[in-house]
Amino acid sequence: MLARMATTTGTRFLAALRAAEPDLRLLTEATDTDAYRYDETAYLEPGHPLGVVFPTSTAQVAAIVRLCAEHRVPLVPRGAGSGLSGGATAIDGALTVVMTQLDRILEIDVANLTATVQPGVINADLGRAAAEHGLFYAPDPASFEFCTIGGNLAENSGGLRCVKYGVTRDAVLGLEVVLADGAVIRSGGKNAKDVLGYDLTHLFIGSEGTLGIITEAILRLRPMPPPMLTLLAFFPSVAAAGEAVAAMTSAGLVPATLELMDRFTIEAVDAAMRIGLDTSAGAMLMVESDLGGAAAEAELKVAADACEAAGSTSVLRAADTTEADWLRQARRKAHWSLEQAGVARMDDVGVPRSRVPQMLAAIEKVATAHSMRIGVFGHAGDGNLHPTYVMDRDDLAAGARIEAARADIYAAALAMGGTVSGEHGTGIAKRSYLVRQRGADSVRVMRSLKDALDPLGILNPGKVLEV
Amino acid sequence: MLARMATTTGTRFLAALRAAEPDLRLLTEATDTDAYRYDETAYLEPGHPLGVVFPTSTAQVAAIVRLCAEHRVPLVPRGAGSGLSGGATAIDGALTVVMTQLDRILEIDVANLTATVQPGVINADLGRAAAEHGLFYAPDPASFEFCTIGGNLAENSGGLRCVKYGVTRDAVLGLEVVLADGAVIRSGGKNAKDVLGYDLTHLFIGSEGTLGIITEAILRLRPMPPPMLTLLAFFPSVAAAGEAVAAMTSAGLVPATLELMDRFTIEAVDAAMRIGLDTSAGAMLMVESDLGGAAAEAELKVAADACEAAGSTSVLRAADTTEADWLRQARRKAHWSLEQAGVARMDDVGVPRSRVPQMLAAIEKVATAHSMRIGVFGHAGDGNLHPTYVMDRDDLAAGARIEAARADIYAAALAMGGTVSGEHGTGIAKRSYLVRQRGADSVRVMRSLKDALDPLGILNPGKVLEV
Repeated sequence: MLARMATTTGTRFLAALRAAEPDLRLLTEATDTDAYRYDETAYLEPGHPLGVVFPTSTAQVAAIVRLCAEHRVPLVPRGAGSGLSGGATAIDGALTVVMTQLDRILEIDVANLTATVQPGVINADLGRAAAEHGLFYAPDPASFEFCTIGGNLAENSGGLRCVKYGVTRDAVLGLEVVLADGAVIRSGGKNAKDVLGYDLTHLFIGSEGTLGIITEAILRLRPMPPPMLTLLAFFPSVAAAGEAVAAMTSAGLVPATLELMDRFTIEAVDAAMRIGLDTSAGAMLMVESDLGGAAAEAELKVAADACEAAGSTSVLRAADTTEADWLRQARRKAHWSLEQAGVARMDDVGVPRSRVPQMLAAIEKVATAHSMRIGVFGHAGDGNLHPTYVMDRDDLAAGARIEAARADIYAAALAMGGTVSGEHGTGIAKRSYLVRQRGADSVRVMRSLKDALDPLGILNPGKVLEV
Repeated sequence: MLARMATTTGTRFLAALRAAEPDLRLLTEATDTDAYRYDETAYLEPGHPLGVVFPTSTAQVAAIVRLCAEHRVPLVPRGAGSGLSGGATAIDGALTVVMTQLDRILEIDVANLTATVQPGVINADLGRAAAEHGLFYAPDPASFEFCTIGGNLAENSGGLRCVKYGVTRDAVLGLEVVLADGAVIRSGGKNAKDVLGYDLTHLFIGSEGTLGIITEAILRLRPMPPPMLTLLAFFPSVAAAGEAVAAMTSAGLVPATLELMDRFTIEAVDAAMRIGLDTSAGAMLMVESDLGGAAAEAELKVAADACEAAGSTSVLRAADTTEADWLRQARRKAHWSLEQAGVARMDDVGVPRSRVPQMLAAIEKVATAHSMRIGVFGHAGDGNLHPTYVMDRDDLAAGARIEAARADIYAAALAMGGTVSGEHGTGIAKRSYLVRQRGADSVRVMRSLKDALDPLGILNPGKVLEV
């Protein structure tokens, strides 16, 4: 109960906030604020916020931050809450600032191939708005139907199409950011090339609201590519599928998507969605081309040849775009499908692409050593895999067993020059691995950046870096 | 002479450096060090260095930086000295650290499409080494035959192929950096996706050696594209050429290069290289496709149609790759050719791509208003133009007249949401425009980053930010 009691500081702050921003929607009752405590990391117990606010303008965000600075009240910026490392989870005594009311697409600039958006815009809504102009916003996290652009920017989110079009970072031209003292800056702009001064845009991307709060973004659009052609290949083992991926990479193939599922995931997806996948296979690859026409056929031919050379048991093609959409949807539902089999916690590691076969073997070894079910799926073309620990619902030791397994998986990834976070951020879940992966001196630099931009430590404290 | 006299601090430092690094090549005589004072900004009078050193290892760079920190001696990292904003010009009493002996290509990793290189590697040498493996390093500044990768990283250099493949930043996966206290860190790696912690890689790129010294880089290679098909289009005016560029951009065309030259530049290039360009034309576009075969033909057809719709007087195709190479070489020689017509100072501005016609008109207006010859060429497809002030060799007021003209050109670019530096860095030449373009609060953030990473102010002081 103690944590739920507003401190004197908190009471004063809330009164000042109400007085300064009478039109601001502010929730303070636990029954109202509880829904904003969690993100998709249910295993991390979040704190109890002092309050939850829903600003509707940049000026209002700036006013909130100024008041927070004045009263030394920390704040947690939050989008849709679909994050997977605890970047948006509530902090005891902090103000959670929900950005979803800043949800306008301010401009689609067809002549410059840019979109200017507020952070609360849903990723898929931007995609649809761009499509109306024959344009395309590439970054597509699996959560694209509900995650926000602000969350994507905060986490530098990936997605299925990253293998060809890059991650969220690669789609950003400029930002508007509210700093820790409430000042509002703009970085970048609509220029394709712009090198004056230090690049602040890239510093804020992926910083999880710990260095500033993004209130607007200028994003890069592309001409809409032709509809995808989709290939599925089944393999006797994940090792064979991994070899096919490595062969495609070194052949210089850059498909629009290159996704992998292991046997456990195939079974779970097929059980949940009844698509008729080959559940006897050890692994499946989905390879897609958006080159259109003969070029797409040629690209998938190279992919099919690589699969066959690696020992695929069957190579199929989606009959039409509807079937292809359905298969892609099945891949996006991998995590959800595994959740039907038990308590599923999705992890996120990356390795240099040539190491995908070895990393897949390492995950299998960890599963065996820990007598655990670990489903594997992910963006194999990027070397970015999602080992997913699936535990019985009544396993009281599940948390500790997962911790032990993930330590082994991270150790394997790091030994291959990999990363403990490919696209899901650092948040709370991964911060203890920072020194191990980046080195003490790099983390010292990160701390100095945090101190420089947020000297009072009020911006999402404890995320990315431990307090 | 005063500036040339080593101070007591300097004498002590040099003695300590010689003692600590007896094998380090160290020049201290003005006759030896003078060659390392300038970059390609002859109009900026550089300082006189305390000494010039040529380290041969990361450990030696670190030892030098540690000694500099201990003795409070500033240092200036330097590559080939082909920079265009004064990033590498000598500073009075500072040690110039020439990185050209760190010139090894450490690895071409075909399986992961990466190159690991030291900073002194010449851009074109990397390109050739990659080509031996059927791979391709995309960033290609006009100076690619002599500029170093380290300089490219320090300036976030552009080039002709940026319009399709992005700038230097977009080709970097990881760095090794010596910090201001001599600590050595690594950022990034060979992972296609890696989001753990703050992104330090992007902070160092483009920071001109003011935040750290890059001693190694992991760069992204691509499969070698097919040979270029090259189209030239001549227009009655730069305005018409600008309209063709805008039409191609909004049509979603992403050619491999999309370059512009105005009449003055066409005449200068043709006089210098005798290619037989249409010197009666008001402007010329060069458009290239590396899609290969029918796709390249189709792409250039769209480009040709856009040119004709914008009023081109003729559209030609290079007969073969030799002729195309020759034409591209002519474009790269634009600045050099203009130098044959007088003292030529190349500038570098960028605008959102739809604004290219307006920016070209603005430059013409400035030339008329100041009764100056301003040649214009550049990467029109990126909105990145190089207005080049060409002055009579005996014009004693040239410096002041250029300053007045460039102030007007920058004002015009900024009024269009443009930038005063598209790809040539900030250095000394552009730093006075930082506040105007980025805003005081953004520059305050940049200063706080500089203070955080270089608290003693020894790393290339006065570059990017005024001291």
